[in-house]
Amino acid sequence: MKESRKVVLIGTGMVGMSMAYSLMNTGGIDELVLIDIDEEKAKGEAMDLNHGIPYSTNKMKIKSGNYQECRDSDIVVICAGANQKEGQTRLELTKINTNIVKDIALKIKSSGFNGIVIVASNPVDILSYVVYKVMGIDKSKVIGTGTLLDTARMGYLLSEYIGVSSDDIEAYILGEHGDSSFISWTNTYVGCKTLLEYVDEKNLDMNDLNEIYDDVRNAAYEIIERKKATYYGIGLSLNKLINSIFNDTNKILCVSAYLDHEYKHKDIYIGVPCVINREGIKEVIQLPLNGVDQGKFDDSYEILRKLKVEVKKDLGLS
Amino acid sequence: MKESRKVVLIGTGMVGMSMAYSLMNTGGIDELVLIDIDEEKAKGEAMDLNHGIPYSTNKMKIKSGNYQECRDSDIVVICAGANQKEGQTRLELTKINTNIVKDIALKIKSSGFNGIVIVASNPVDILSYVVYKVMGIDKSKVIGTGTLLDTARMGYLLSEYIGVSSDDIEAYILGEHGDSSFISWTNTYVGCKTLLEYVDEKNLDMNDLNEIYDDVRNAAYEIIERKKATYYGIGLSLNKLINSIFNDTNKILCVSAYLDHEYKHKDIYIGVPCVINREGIKEVIQLPLNGVDQGKFDDSYEILRKLKVEVKKDLGLS
Amino acid sequence: MKESRKVVLIGTGMVGMSMAYSLMNTGGIDELVLIDIDEEKAKGEAMDLNHGIPYSTNKMKIKSGNYQECRDSDIVVICAGANQKEGQTRLELTKINTNIVKDIALKIKSSGFNGIVIVASNPVDILSYVVYKVMGIDKSKVIGTGTLLDTARMGYLLSEYIGVSSDDIEAYILGEHGDSSFISWTNTYVGCKTLLEYVDEKNLDMNDLNEIYDDVRNAAYEIIERKKATYYGIGLSLNKLINSIFNDTNKILCVSAYLDHEYKHKDIYIGVPCVINREGIKEVIQLPLNGVDQGKFDDSYEILRKLKVEVKKDLGLS
Amino acid sequence: MKESRKVVLIGTGMVGMSMAYSLMNTGGIDELVLIDIDEEKAKGEAMDLNHGIPYSTNKMKIKSGNYQECRDSDIVVICAGANQKEGQTRLELTKINTNIVKDIALKIKSSGFNGIVIVASNPVDILSYVVYKVMGIDKSKVIGTGTLLDTARMGYLLSEYIGVSSDDIEAYILGEHGDSSFISWTNTYVGCKTLLEYVDEKNLDMNDLNEIYDDVRNAAYEIIERKKATYYGIGLSLNKLINSIFNDTNKILCVSAYLDHEYKHKDIYIGVPCVINREGIKEVIQLPLNGVDQGKFDDSYEILRKLKVEVKKDLGLS
Repeated sequence: MKESRKVVLIGTGMVGMSMAYSLMNTGGIDELVLIDIDEEKAKGEAMDLNHGIPYSTNKMKIKSGNYQECRDSDIVVICAGANQKEGQTRLELTKINTNIVKDIALKIKSSGFNGIVIVASNPVDILSYVVYKVMGIDKSKVIGTGTLLDTARMGYLLSEYIGVSSDDIEAYILGEHGDSSFISWTNTYVGCKTLLEYVDEKNLDMNDLNEIYDDVRNAAYEIIERKKATYYGIGLSLNKLINSIFNDTNKILCVSAYLDHEYKHKDIYIGVPCVINREGIKEVIQLPLNGVDQGKFDDSYEILRKLKVEVKKDLGLS
Repeated sequence: MKESRKVVLIGTGMVGMSMAYSLMNTGGIDELVLIDIDEEKAKGEAMDLNHGIPYSTNKMKIKSGNYQECRDSDIVVICAGANQKEGQTRLELTKINTNIVKDIALKIKSSGFNGIVIVASNPVDILSYVVYKVMGIDKSKVIGTGTLLDTARMGYLLSEYIGVSSDDIEAYILGEHGDSSFISWTNTYVGCKTLLEYVDEKNLDMNDLNEIYDDVRNAAYEIIERKKATYYGIGLSLNKLINSIFNDTNKILCVSAYLDHEYKHKDIYIGVPCVINREGIKEVIQLPLNGVDQGKFDDSYEILRKLKVEVKKDLGLS
Repeated sequence: MKESRKVVLIGTGMVGMSMAYSLMNTGGIDELVLIDIDEEKAKGEAMDLNHGIPYSTNKMKIKSGNYQECRDSDIVVICAGANQKEGQTRLELTKINTNIVKDIALKIKSSGFNGIVIVASNPVDILSYVVYKVMGIDKSKVIGTGTLLDTARMGYLLSEYIGVSSDDIEAYILGEHGDSSFISWTNTYVGCKTLLEYVDEKNLDMNDLNEIYDDVRNAAYEIIERKKATYYGIGLSLNKLINSIFNDTNKILCVSAYLDHEYKHKDIYIGVPCVINREGIKEVIQLPLNGVDQGKFDDSYEILRKLKVEVKKDLGLS
Repeated sequence: MKESRKVVLIGTGMVGMSMAYSLMNTGGIDELVLIDIDEEKAKGEAMDLNHGIPYSTNKMKIKSGNYQECRDSDIVVICAGANQKEGQTRLELTKINTNIVKDIALKIKSSGFNGIVIVASNPVDILSYVVYKVMGIDKSKVIGTGTLLDTARMGYLLSEYIGVSSDDIEAYILGEHGDSSFISWTNTYVGCKTLLEYVDEKNLDMNDLNEIYDDVRNAAYEIIERKKATYYGIGLSLNKLINSIFNDTNKILCVSAYLDHEYKHKDIYIGVPCVINREGIKEVIQLPLNGVDQGKFDDSYEILRKLKVEVKKDLGLS
């Protein structure tokens, strides 16, 4: 019998553990290994999860472990990294996390790993690029969560506003997972209609829509203000991504992908819609952006490009 | 504790039973009652399903019963009716089934039923109209399966052809559930793009797409030739419709709905995209058809209208 | 259409939220309302959960709210309460939480609530008793989580030790949810055999089994030492309990139930196996305890009885 | 990425197709190939299933194919075989089906298959033996459905009678899948109690229990009388068996297994409780039968042994 669907999680903070708990509840994988710099923490998390197994319909195998476990795993998810401290600039944080993630990438590589790496640590676009460069594997095999959660937030809020299931709303948030992300309203659909036709027909207010986008952009801040961190939404997003890979679905998801002349740019990881299957990123989908939206994309790219240059210099990447 | 999600199935042929088995496997309802003119058949079906309960994660209650069970049920599904016999014209079959379904509708009504009726028997558009007229309930509470399965077939075949998950394809089959149905290519989307943009970009062949539509239209014939009947696809379609109602999803599904000036027509049941929730049909979605497609819709409407006139005369409906 | 399966969660700490997240992942309920003394916290939690909805197959409705929401809900789950602080005695903590939970119970009662209350706050057996007394509803309608999680832990560990699925192991932890709980080995089964026959046949070591029980009793401490708190296991336990109620399963679960001469005691809430369905606790199952085990049960009862006397005096309960 | 969970179904009659449809509804496998002597039939069945994919949460790959597909599959399920015709003796039927299944086994073997074979065709115990002998693979890799469905029927009926979930009832039907099967009441449990203690305590009537067993034994006849064939229950049973294997559950299931001195017999396939995981049959569980029950087991064995001798001679097996 062929081997199982094995996932290794690196970093057992609330984001990684929410993914782990989500997978345990929905099923879809066979084996989960938890790795943390605090080994006892990882062990405690495995215990807490395992004790729920008898009440779950999914009897997946969960344990803590080390990087050797990456060797025969299918997917490694990187959720490790420091959180922004008071007084710390975003660039300072980036420096810290790029170094952490570089080390992790090297350890994964030296295990003999031959699968797909998902990066969820922030700043996710840059860290995905670092993993891609450090590991030297095919661009289809490194996927950042990018605007995956932003896109879910937009889907949820539009669904509430319009009164149509989020399953029938196609509204992708493009660009950096950060303040320069944006939505291309002309490429947004509700069922078999453009959102703009919908707005017209129902006399919806474009101001409302723009407010919804503001809510999406501010969602993380709003949640952090109230509960200190955000993790359940991203946990489910990671679950969706992982199951889309294993089930070979060809599902379109907005993730941070390596551009190779798509959207007029290259050598960058940035949020764009992609077809996801067992190969990882099967294809980057190029939306027909109008001038304004292409301008927003270019701005977002430029922010990431500058950061990339800094990071490459800092890490000594070629 | 409030009462359960109760469904009554009328007609335990392969279509109805495939729905029943599908529900038992996926869950989503609490109680299922099977009614058949052959009471022993219904009893046997309930036994066969119940024996699988210990191996199912869904412990729904299943039994055979009579029309009194409709009284406190949420949804009644009509799958009863004769099949076309050799030498029989379609009109002859229609006569037989409209009379059968009229009787069933009267029995449901007199039980004191106050929920949603789903009609799956054929010709489904006309039979939905009959149920609506005979029961005298709100149009939102009578739903025909219409082109629900045709739309699934199109989604599946396009997904295979294009290499994108059917979850990201919005391609509705409009009109009569029959030879006059059609697809409006200009209202078909793949992810955040029109299908036509996709065709252009990927150099897809419109002949292939038209062949796919032919395959959809001929699918029932192709399957019947090979296995005498078609039932698994429609079973899953009914499951999807029922769960969309109970879960109050606002999911867009192509079903046979009563037109009240939408698509330029009225007083007819015909396949159109609708928003489905606990109210039943919350809204008919009007797609912006071009001249050619509106012409196809008009033709399909006209076929159904003529049949309706015949049937109303035959049944003595006002 | 009849109303939905509505659950109100009181207390959005990690235990309550793990239950909420688990329900969102597995499905089974329609509406979830989060109540917290920190209203903004509850609002933030609802946001975080809702943003995952587009990637979940379960589109349940989640919001924050107030006690008015209990009125038409089916189940209220109490997860509120203080955690033990350093230097604080267990009795001091009990005093604080009994007062908190008494207040909550009064608010639920005055909402006009007419469903089932689940108590997960600690000390759970005493708090369940307080809710039962304060609300004055039928004993079948107040359920404490009791040894529900302890029993899952035992199931998991025995399953690993013996190499048989936890679905085939019946090993209930009886008594107080605390240090005086115990397992009755003579009432423990693996498939169609007693555990003792199994031990005999496989030459298993009773010392191993007793160590496993020690691990169960110490599990919370072990996890807290490593990750500060334990919540995923209890989150899944609460999910199981809630779904067992809604699905009317007659599932046997070890919960804290009101004794009325079962196990030779009365007027106490304590962990015992019960049949759970839409009525709540349909029946307390009386296991045939031998002298040693009955002695352990008596001891556990006595600890809870003394605490009960204190608490009743403190709260002025008759 | 490692390959998928691939199942090949041989024989697309109602039993095999009910398994296929069940798997499509619950998920758990990635790829299903349908093989039938009537290739067009298999093709039609694949079409009918595939058309439901867009409404299923499980996007498994389904197609018709030939024996080459067995090569890289994990599990092959044999559901092929003739049904008993009027006037035909059971022995005549056995002759026909042993020859059919022998041919199938040879074809599977020559494909280079290296997985687990499940046999569901009747007489299932003898046909499992034939497959085991013809293929010459390890006894753990050939599993007959045996009394798997009989045991589910018993679980369902006891659950209804006693008012406890079938998940908490352990009541295995032992012996031949046929009239000589039996239940060992002394090895039957409800939660943490013997059924006999339960009977005693609740004043249940042993006559009722014996009637329930009669109902189990006659269930197939009762259903066939009403709906000509029985397939939904066995479809779910096969689903459970397949998912228990893939999920490596160590679940105890009553199946037809090769005895090697267990229950005092050897060189026979017969219904006994087994631990099932990715190895196939990990272990035969030996229940402590009393004299009467061992006698029943011996009788059942003897019936199968005689048949085995006939069949071996007929097929020229050593």
